[in-house]
Amino acid sequence: MASTATKHPYEYFTVCFPSDRPYVAHVEINRPDKLNTFIESMWLEMRQVFDQLSSDSSVRAIVLTGAGNRAFSAGLDVKQASTELFSDKGGSDTARKTFHIRRYIRQFQECLTAIERCEKPVICAMHGFSYGFAIDICAAADIRLCTRDVQFSVNEVDIGMAADIGVLSRLPKVVGNFGWVKEIALTARTFGAEEALRVGFVNTIYDIKEAAVRGSLELASLIAQKSPVAVLGTKELLNYSRDHSIQEGLRYTAVWNSGALQTSDVPTALLSGMEKRVPTFEKL
Amino acid sequence: MASTATKHPYEYFTVCFPSDRPYVAHVEINRPDKLNTFIESMWLEMRQVFDQLSSDSSVRAIVLTGAGNRAFSAGLDVKQASTELFSDKGGSDTARKTFHIRRYIRQFQECLTAIERCEKPVICAMHGFSYGFAIDICAAADIRLCTRDVQFSVNEVDIGMAADIGVLSRLPKVVGNFGWVKEIALTARTFGAEEALRVGFVNTIYDIKEAAVRGSLELASLIAQKSPVAVLGTKELLNYSRDHSIQEGLRYTAVWNSGALQTSDVPTALLSGMEKRVPTFEKL
Amino acid sequence: MASTATKHPYEYFTVCFPSDRPYVAHVEINRPDKLNTFIESMWLEMRQVFDQLSSDSSVRAIVLTGAGNRAFSAGLDVKQASTELFSDKGGSDTARKTFHIRRYIRQFQECLTAIERCEKPVICAMHGFSYGFAIDICAAADIRLCTRDVQFSVNEVDIGMAADIGVLSRLPKVVGNFGWVKEIALTARTFGAEEALRVGFVNTIYDIKEAAVRGSLELASLIAQKSPVAVLGTKELLNYSRDHSIQEGLRYTAVWNSGALQTSDVPTALLSGMEKRVPTFEKL
Amino acid sequence: MASTATKHPYEYFTVCFPSDRPYVAHVEINRPDKLNTFIESMWLEMRQVFDQLSSDSSVRAIVLTGAGNRAFSAGLDVKQASTELFSDKGGSDTARKTFHIRRYIRQFQECLTAIERCEKPVICAMHGFSYGFAIDICAAADIRLCTRDVQFSVNEVDIGMAADIGVLSRLPKVVGNFGWVKEIALTARTFGAEEALRVGFVNTIYDIKEAAVRGSLELASLIAQKSPVAVLGTKELLNYSRDHSIQEGLRYTAVWNSGALQTSDVPTALLSGMEKRVPTFEKL
Amino acid sequence: MASTATKHPYEYFTVCFPSDRPYVAHVEINRPDKLNTFIESMWLEMRQVFDQLSSDSSVRAIVLTGAGNRAFSAGLDVKQASTELFSDKGGSDTARKTFHIRRYIRQFQECLTAIERCEKPVICAMHGFSYGFAIDICAAADIRLCTRDVQFSVNEVDIGMAADIGVLSRLPKVVGNFGWVKEIALTARTFGAEEALRVGFVNTIYDIKEAAVRGSLELASLIAQKSPVAVLGTKELLNYSRDHSIQEGLRYTAVWNSGALQTSDVPTALLSGMEKRVPTFEKL
Amino acid sequence: MASTATKHPYEYFTVCFPSDRPYVAHVEINRPDKLNTFIESMWLEMRQVFDQLSSDSSVRAIVLTGAGNRAFSAGLDVKQASTELFSDKGGSDTARKTFHIRRYIRQFQECLTAIERCEKPVICAMHGFSYGFAIDICAAADIRLCTRDVQFSVNEVDIGMAADIGVLSRLPKVVGNFGWVKEIALTARTFGAEEALRVGFVNTIYDIKEAAVRGSLELASLIAQKSPVAVLGTKELLNYSRDHSIQEGLRYTAVWNSGALQTSDVPTALLSGMEKRVPTFEKL
Repeated sequence: MASTATKHPYEYFTVCFPSDRPYVAHVEINRPDKLNTFIESMWLEMRQVFDQLSSDSSVRAIVLTGAGNRAFSAGLDVKQASTELFSDKGGSDTARKTFHIRRYIRQFQECLTAIERCEKPVICAMHGFSYGFAIDICAAADIRLCTRDVQFSVNEVDIGMAADIGVLSRLPKVVGNFGWVKEIALTARTFGAEEALRVGFVNTIYDIKEAAVRGSLELASLIAQKSPVAVLGTKELLNYSRDHSIQEGLRYTAVWNSGALQTSDVPTALLSGMEKRVPTFEKL
Repeated sequence: MASTATKHPYEYFTVCFPSDRPYVAHVEINRPDKLNTFIESMWLEMRQVFDQLSSDSSVRAIVLTGAGNRAFSAGLDVKQASTELFSDKGGSDTARKTFHIRRYIRQFQECLTAIERCEKPVICAMHGFSYGFAIDICAAADIRLCTRDVQFSVNEVDIGMAADIGVLSRLPKVVGNFGWVKEIALTARTFGAEEALRVGFVNTIYDIKEAAVRGSLELASLIAQKSPVAVLGTKELLNYSRDHSIQEGLRYTAVWNSGALQTSDVPTALLSGMEKRVPTFEKL
Repeated sequence: MASTATKHPYEYFTVCFPSDRPYVAHVEINRPDKLNTFIESMWLEMRQVFDQLSSDSSVRAIVLTGAGNRAFSAGLDVKQASTELFSDKGGSDTARKTFHIRRYIRQFQECLTAIERCEKPVICAMHGFSYGFAIDICAAADIRLCTRDVQFSVNEVDIGMAADIGVLSRLPKVVGNFGWVKEIALTARTFGAEEALRVGFVNTIYDIKEAAVRGSLELASLIAQKSPVAVLGTKELLNYSRDHSIQEGLRYTAVWNSGALQTSDVPTALLSGMEKRVPTFEKL
Repeated sequence: MASTATKHPYEYFTVCFPSDRPYVAHVEINRPDKLNTFIESMWLEMRQVFDQLSSDSSVRAIVLTGAGNRAFSAGLDVKQASTELFSDKGGSDTARKTFHIRRYIRQFQECLTAIERCEKPVICAMHGFSYGFAIDICAAADIRLCTRDVQFSVNEVDIGMAADIGVLSRLPKVVGNFGWVKEIALTARTFGAEEALRVGFVNTIYDIKEAAVRGSLELASLIAQKSPVAVLGTKELLNYSRDHSIQEGLRYTAVWNSGALQTSDVPTALLSGMEKRVPTFEKL
Repeated sequence: MASTATKHPYEYFTVCFPSDRPYVAHVEINRPDKLNTFIESMWLEMRQVFDQLSSDSSVRAIVLTGAGNRAFSAGLDVKQASTELFSDKGGSDTARKTFHIRRYIRQFQECLTAIERCEKPVICAMHGFSYGFAIDICAAADIRLCTRDVQFSVNEVDIGMAADIGVLSRLPKVVGNFGWVKEIALTARTFGAEEALRVGFVNTIYDIKEAAVRGSLELASLIAQKSPVAVLGTKELLNYSRDHSIQEGLRYTAVWNSGALQTSDVPTALLSGMEKRVPTFEKL
Repeated sequence: MASTATKHPYEYFTVCFPSDRPYVAHVEINRPDKLNTFIESMWLEMRQVFDQLSSDSSVRAIVLTGAGNRAFSAGLDVKQASTELFSDKGGSDTARKTFHIRRYIRQFQECLTAIERCEKPVICAMHGFSYGFAIDICAAADIRLCTRDVQFSVNEVDIGMAADIGVLSRLPKVVGNFGWVKEIALTARTFGAEEALRVGFVNTIYDIKEAAVRGSLELASLIAQKSPVAVLGTKELLNYSRDHSIQEGLRYTAVWNSGALQTSDVPTALLSGMEKRVPTFEKL
């Protein structure tokens, strides 16, 4: 097994590889004294974390949590974000400022898209305050779990802006209840675990944070035992299909699988199934 | 405050601006003796209503209800609609009739799209009979609320036609339950408030019409207190994202916000938040 | 009445036309001793069945069930499928194998798309084991019903592959809960009737298979009594709208109905409605 | 014949119906003393002109020219346009100005799209100065002709802006030479008739304006003698296909023609063809 | 070499495999006494021809010509086509006729799309009358060549209809001169070889039919000597890219080639290149 | 003026800022002894070059040429490329190799897309051998110029593969002659300057390399004197419109310009125009 459980030297993220959970990476947002709020260097680092895990062949599933007891993340560190946004980089000309802000948003969005683009499934376990940018993050993840005490809020309108890092693009495709999405985004009201489960925003509720983290790791382990060719393909094809017509989805799937089906994982999996044992798959 | 609570001189719609609810417009379908069924002049007028409110800077959120106790709207006034449809405007040549009908449908659709195109959020509160065209209307609105006694029905198949003013295009994107949408549209069966809530067609159920109207106005007020730059942007970006891939959504969002973020509403909102007071935003 | 209740000479499917249910066809997957698992000749035949019913003017709604008590279908006959897939048709060159597999998948997908392309609504009633390919099938149908004992599973990852016959393209559009879809597809875990109902994968649960079949036939009968111009148009427009933006949906709808509205079914339906009798519609 | 050759009371456009050219409308931009430059009231009026001709059953083809000898149109009346654009309607808040400008551009674009949306083919004959907005206009038309002395220029970059009324969206689809389109739009250099013909921007060059106008009217007459069902359908289907994939184009075409082919124009045309006489078609 | 130069037993098409041109198929439309006009059984057969060649591993490039000296094809056999179209299959109800006609057009389109869908490049050599349906055919082919005496015409408007078998969808993507496409389709005027070459509708002009056929066969031979993995991939990727954005094109290309590049044709081709000899590639 | 004419320390590219051409960057591919063929480190470096110029506010237009007299670039250094491609990174499992190759292609494509994504216009001046990858490069540039002696070839099929770094996606959108594109890509034949000009692949032909470089620099200078707000916007909007429908193009344009039009460059440009002097624009 390749998981060496080393800690990567990230400043705001702890990345570990639980020794009892082969092929699982556990990423923790680590700025608990500030309720895990994000400053620019954090989201730039977050991109590095997920880009690196995406191509790490020792990783097959990822769990994302927030350090501390109070918050998955209370969103952006508003003070720092607004300083950056209203800096004079663009000069006094409105159009030049517009260019500057657009580049800034695009770069910011890219950091978050690293989670969606990450080839391995990302499971997000949320607790406590999970506001604003926290929703952007988990909407880019594949599966969302939460604790009973979680408090969600898409609260960007309360700071005078339409959310722009991804939640407005992703939420309508994550949750099939467009009226609810609009209410949540237009009112910025908080909502809890039960409501999140009912509308399909989260898959499962856990009583306490420890249970949610353990539940996430178990789910990740279950996925990490499958063929990585199957798992990575499934994530890619589901994300592709979400954004395309059925016909386009089928066409892309056929081309994708014309190579992927030539894997030895299929006979390996079939044989293990017949022999009732856990298969072992080569790294990918 | 700019809301002068004047009544606009519409024939089939009452538009008022409750004095205790700044920036909220209340539109009422007003043909209760006919169960608020629609004739052609009504949908043409409805377009005027929403086009006008869309650009009225004294309005930030809109509530749409039906007058009387029996119906939000029982749909089209079938008699009048069929007379129009089967008039001889297109002459005896089938292709010419086809052109005529297509133009007629496109114009009709445009009237309804005025609700979606309206820059301000539209909250629809439904009670009693809400059949056929009523579903087209509320599917074009942003948020749907209802009373416990509401009776919904997508009943066009019962008059020998596939619905064509928008419900078949919008319902699959409003409700993420495609099997249910098909059952409802193919059987024309009625469904009630609980079922509507369960599938995500409505957000909240109220006991009686008065409560639903009050609830809608409160929701509208809550939204109307937010920055209009934030609220109008959020509606636009959510509607855009519904119809595009994630990548397209992110790209459009960045361009949109590169201008919108230069608003003074952001510092205004931030400051008010810190000082725990309700912010005041310039008209838009 | 045209339904002559003849049995078509299919090898793996029973197709009958219940004499008490005009315009309804009942298709049964008929390989119960093998849990209705599919071999290649079966999916080729399935395409024939649905292509033929699509253009049969005596049919207005279709019910699809599985013979026997144990399974709607336990999926592919894995042995036969893997033999085919790993045959040497493509030779030893990887790229040539890739071409061969792609053609094979495309043809396989086409067989399944025959259900979606079928002009008449298809209602799928599932019981017992409903694994893998069974989910592909029902996701291509219009309405899904099930028994309380049903066991669903998107289990392709357990045989080392990303599902490629359609479920990954269709499921995200059938069920508006993307996190659940990902969990189900990435873990291959089984889920039951209640969970399926909650997320919107099925419309109704029946206690036993007989009830589910009867319920499906009743639903089919209800639809078959409507104008076929209305019913076929509704299926087409809903499927089209699922894959397109609202604006595209409205445009296509207008062109579609510009011809369809010239049917005598509209006056027929209106008159019957007024006279409170069941209308009779010409074949289509 | 229905063409009554009346002059419509437009302020900036002359619309006439040449008595010797049945079903042809001739629209002339009529502000020659200002080189037919456009002010806001002109483009609003232009929309009216084309919307009205679009539904006028006495019209089957339209010619668009510019009055006077010096210019088809020298573009926008920059002074008036900039006054409008930089008015204080949006107030001092940048985001509010952004909203105001966007609405203004959208309305402006809509006026121009009236030419593309006009159901009848529009032939544009250009001479002399044809700068800026003149290119937007003719790119929205169906066929472009010009005189030998014409001077074209996409000159918006020379006034500090990217063109926004349509030329950047339409030109790459009108002319299949993307490098040339970029050079022309990025340098603002003028180009003449020969170059325009070579790259496919115009179809034919005439020696003098009178010849170009006569040539346009003859082309319009030729088209106006055809079945309007055929001609209007051809314009619609070509514009639709330009913006969609081949598969989408074929699907839309089939639905469109399923109604249109039921016209008596087909037997009328076939019979006339066999009898070598000019067919007469009912109005549309 | 596998090309056995057998004649397939088609009624209206001659298919031969010139013994001196390995891997090249020559298809000839063979109804010269009727100017190669098409009746329904012909286009159904044409589909068979191209479907069969698409999967025939002895074929790597296809030439399509018309028998006789007078015409590649003068289009549809109008008499037969109109009989079919106006048959009473749809009954007297307009909507039912609409359904019937749509199905008929869709099936017809599918026959023609067989040329585009054919995995091998199709080179079309045209001479003499090449009207109406002939343009649909060659627009679905990959490369068009012609003789100096060819007469082209998109003449559907002259029989009262908008062309519906594909030319209006394909021509704007084949020729990057939208104004010319519109003129040609709206006027139905004939055009010759020089004009066709100038606008990019044909690649080369030959003096006489024999030269055009020989030129086509030489071009086909040249292509047939290349790696079939490379050639078939190039056709597929170009057609895909035509219908998608650059980003979509790149994504699909990467997935396609991730399998295709594992071919031994690459080292085979490289080695042959270095050794200056003609490579031999395994069948595909 | 900010252009300090420093040489950046690139290994395979020379980047200079001609002192007499403000705001113009000149990039030269610099491996002339190997005919400027590309190895992996070169395309990775090329990405750096264009990413850096994209955000360098001292640059407004870029010229790209090849060092030496013999070649713009003879394409990939095939030996090195094939070594990389057929390395054992993916291991022995075909599916794992497929993943590896796909990632490799995507990264390679990204390097090339840096030219298209570069905010500033890129003018490509080609001479001598311009094969394979050279075509990918220039198809991603905005404007192509060449010398009379240039030899172009899309020669990937001759090494047994379909081109996958972008030419098959971009060429059909650069040149509006789909038959020619297919011939060129399927035969790998060379073509010269005159043919390239005729089909619209290049804009201008120069006699010798020096003239082409000078011509490119002059064109770049002309563009660099314009408002950068106008120039960068024009590139972005043209590229966006290429990939979207007219309606989408107009919508995006309006949002883009709602910010960009608030620039002081418009009054600056207008005033300079009236005063007949060259305007000076603030950096962007």
